[in-house]
Amino acid sequence: MTRVELFDQIKKKQSYLCVGLDTDINKIPKHLLSKDDPIFEFNKQIIDATKEFAVAYKPNIAFYEALGSKGWESLQKTVDYFPSEVFTIADAKRGDIGNTSALYAKAFFDQMSFDSITVAPYMGQDSVTPFLRDGKWVILLVHTSNPGSADFQLMVSRDTGKKLFEEVIEKSKQWATADAMMYVVGATRADKLSEIRTLAPDHFFLVPGVGAQGGNLEEVSKHGMNKHCGLLVNSSRGIIYASHNEDFVDTARNEAKKLQEEMKMLLDTYL
Amino acid sequence: MTRVELFDQIKKKQSYLCVGLDTDINKIPKHLLSKDDPIFEFNKQIIDATKEFAVAYKPNIAFYEALGSKGWESLQKTVDYFPSEVFTIADAKRGDIGNTSALYAKAFFDQMSFDSITVAPYMGQDSVTPFLRDGKWVILLVHTSNPGSADFQLMVSRDTGKKLFEEVIEKSKQWATADAMMYVVGATRADKLSEIRTLAPDHFFLVPGVGAQGGNLEEVSKHGMNKHCGLLVNSSRGIIYASHNEDFVDTARNEAKKLQEEMKMLLDTYL
Repeated sequence: MTRVELFDQIKKKQSYLCVGLDTDINKIPKHLLSKDDPIFEFNKQIIDATKEFAVAYKPNIAFYEALGSKGWESLQKTVDYFPSEVFTIADAKRGDIGNTSALYAKAFFDQMSFDSITVAPYMGQDSVTPFLRDGKWVILLVHTSNPGSADFQLMVSRDTGKKLFEEVIEKSKQWATADAMMYVVGATRADKLSEIRTLAPDHFFLVPGVGAQGGNLEEVSKHGMNKHCGLLVNSSRGIIYASHNEDFVDTARNEAKKLQEEMKMLLDTYL
Repeated sequence: MTRVELFDQIKKKQSYLCVGLDTDINKIPKHLLSKDDPIFEFNKQIIDATKEFAVAYKPNIAFYEALGSKGWESLQKTVDYFPSEVFTIADAKRGDIGNTSALYAKAFFDQMSFDSITVAPYMGQDSVTPFLRDGKWVILLVHTSNPGSADFQLMVSRDTGKKLFEEVIEKSKQWATADAMMYVVGATRADKLSEIRTLAPDHFFLVPGVGAQGGNLEEVSKHGMNKHCGLLVNSSRGIIYASHNEDFVDTARNEAKKLQEEMKMLLDTYL
């Protein structure tokens, strides 16, 4: 999917919602546990209930790895089930030496057909570029939503005066354009979003942390939107665990719809 | 396995060799491809041939993920096959927000019984500490062996004058002691090893990059060894792909033996 196609979907659905499929076998409704594949059954029903309101889906791979090869099968079935028009993100935060990153790319782009993958920047250019396949996207960690983001990401360079996360943006802009690279910027970092937007005017930002982690959708949109929207705002627990009961499908649908309606207003205001 | 137990194994085998099980279905000898599980068959034979000379084994998870759920099964069988006295490393370079890192810990410490896991530091403390389970080890990326290590790891802090990788060591020493944390320092960084050893006198270093990536074992040992050895030096391609033919077992054994013999001399010299 190209950046233009993604923006078309955003305009069509009046939404920049990404649904996080952080599917935990201990949290899904109990009545699903009798199914052959409770994880996939849950995901299938969530996708069906929310696809009208979401432009993207983001399974966090840890949730599937925690269940071994069975979890990997559930993930594969989920990826195969995604509607063709949605943008799919393997939230894997991978990164290794060149030939090894190339194998991670194989896992998520060949073995499974994700559109994009989140990548950690610590090992630098040759750990990131193997993911830059034609038609695929790298979503590079820049300034994350968790408390530990302050440990290293805010370190100021003696030589350039820039913070580490700013150096990550500056350097990575030389590795790929805004048509192949996005950045992870936590919703809890809304105060920094304007600055980050100035450094990366054209790039899409994947913004986790709205909802359970405390980020505010309006603040994020006001500071982060650009002329192609440029935002994919993720919500996971607020949608998929809004109910732990048999009505979880309707509840998920309603929560996704509420977010989409708010996003429609924000697109009208800030786009 | 405790640090003392690991040092006991090093003294017993007169070796600090870690065998990297970077098992690529396209590179293993063709005669294995007719087996039900060629990957596991290869690993099994490599383990049997080299366990006399190695104190640790390190599968790089990317190689298994690239084969989907079948690869994950081969990995599980490999982990179950490791002899009980070896130190096992999931080379996964994982890291995410707290509850997600906890699920990665579940994948590698509960679902599979690895002793340790490599972790990327970019997201800071709360992305690392969930891996610090009783009896388990975090092996934190510090200064890696690849060219891209220069992109961010050498950035100098305006406030402390330290490089980013030094800040990673300084901060992480507060999160866990040398009985639960190790550091990844590339063999190609031997020039920096003395300095890094000064910053972390008691910690074990996992040292990849001897062999195919160009690192020198003697240099690494001279600059990096401490009074408990403090080094796990990894070799993968130099051992497991020393031959692509039916004699691969004997060749692997010989290469591992050569490294162990050199390590014996280096232990005599530098310990």
